[in-house]
Amino acid sequence: MKSDLPLFYVPRLSDTLTMGEEESKHLARVLRLSPGDAIMVTDGEGQMWNAVLTDVSPKASGFSLINEVPQSTVILPPLYLAVAPTKNIDRIEWMLEKMVEVGLEGLFILYTDRTVRRQVNLTRLEKIMISALKQSRKRRITSIIECDGIEALFEHLSSLSTLSSYIGYCSDEYPRRSIKEVFVPAVPSLFLIGPEGDFTPDEVRLTTQRGAIPVTLGEERLRTETAALYSGILHSVLNS
Amino acid sequence: MKSDLPLFYVPRLSDTLTMGEEESKHLARVLRLSPGDAIMVTDGEGQMWNAVLTDVSPKASGFSLINEVPQSTVILPPLYLAVAPTKNIDRIEWMLEKMVEVGLEGLFILYTDRTVRRQVNLTRLEKIMISALKQSRKRRITSIIECDGIEALFEHLSSLSTLSSYIGYCSDEYPRRSIKEVFVPAVPSLFLIGPEGDFTPDEVRLTTQRGAIPVTLGEERLRTETAALYSGILHSVLNS
Repeated sequence: MKSDLPLFYVPRLSDTLTMGEEESKHLARVLRLSPGDAIMVTDGEGQMWNAVLTDVSPKASGFSLINEVPQSTVILPPLYLAVAPTKNIDRIEWMLEKMVEVGLEGLFILYTDRTVRRQVNLTRLEKIMISALKQSRKRRITSIIECDGIEALFEHLSSLSTLSSYIGYCSDEYPRRSIKEVFVPAVPSLFLIGPEGDFTPDEVRLTTQRGAIPVTLGEERLRTETAALYSGILHSVLNS
Repeated sequence: MKSDLPLFYVPRLSDTLTMGEEESKHLARVLRLSPGDAIMVTDGEGQMWNAVLTDVSPKASGFSLINEVPQSTVILPPLYLAVAPTKNIDRIEWMLEKMVEVGLEGLFILYTDRTVRRQVNLTRLEKIMISALKQSRKRRITSIIECDGIEALFEHLSSLSTLSSYIGYCSDEYPRRSIKEVFVPAVPSLFLIGPEGDFTPDEVRLTTQRGAIPVTLGEERLRTETAALYSGILHSVLNS
């Protein structure tokens, strides 16, 4: 049974035992905690600790570390999603929240040729991500990176040599296989999910040249954010 | 490649070649279609037809049927979700929309002992379902049924003898298996997903007496609606 102590996000935990304003406000004003109360903290890089509050104020709160919380032995291979932002950004925000709960190492906001929306509010997406991380008691943050086109995406990914990548594509122009047939378990996965108007043939060519496999996610016609959710949960199911 | 003709929902298609007000308003006012335009219609019971509009008005529009659209040969076994409504009903609405896209035969709104919300707006849920059905070009509606407790749920299910059912449960009080280990493919699935405060031990006992298997959905701590999505997509992945 997992602990139900409230979890706080404190980046650079090795350097500081003080929480910033965002977290302090949450613990002082919303949760109304006091010095002496037990909490948990994570640095978002894999560390999680039991801790005790030493002083509480809505501006900055101090704590001391008690003991490190051991990591579960079951660890999924990392999941990356590269998703064209939807016109209605709520849909991406909701998807992000759900995928942080399930486990998402990196989200690439991918501006493709046919992506109508050309910007997102990264600060807002990061807030949603941190809130989902705390709620679902995760110990690793999801990095959120904007990429202007396929080439930019693969530059970001160049350090990840073991990655298996898949591009969800709706047209019959390229031969596609069912994701279930070609999915490679036990290695990191990247799924590329296009905009409402699909990827262009050029984008699919570029991506497959980089080793991505064109796939279908089954018989169904899925919205962008549903396809992202479907891919992410498929990664979790087929790796657990 | 699937057709991109707009799809309309016309229940009792064998009796009528006229669309009701909701659908007529959509085609006349939003899509601005005219007599002679090609459309598709489904009765929500499995039939789908190519059709042509014969007259258009925002109150009632007529059409004639051209030919039936053959069903895909890949048909998943039916999926049923019994989900306690969340305090914030938006979360259930979003989940419903996503699950209609993926494929959902029935949604049971399950009022358990610890469910805080004691009513939902069924008309609104049905509207969301029809809109998702049209958007994702489904030919079967999702039935949405409210159930006051576990006994009422199993009364509704009594006709479904081949169903495999699973109850997602957070406490260690009952031994639980990983859903991945015990999932039975190729038969209809029912997942029971509890409220924020979990099922009561009595509810789990009642459910397991009816043959449901207590399961965990992996290591993660998932919200009610995320657990429902996760179960539904797992059913789709492991059956395709």
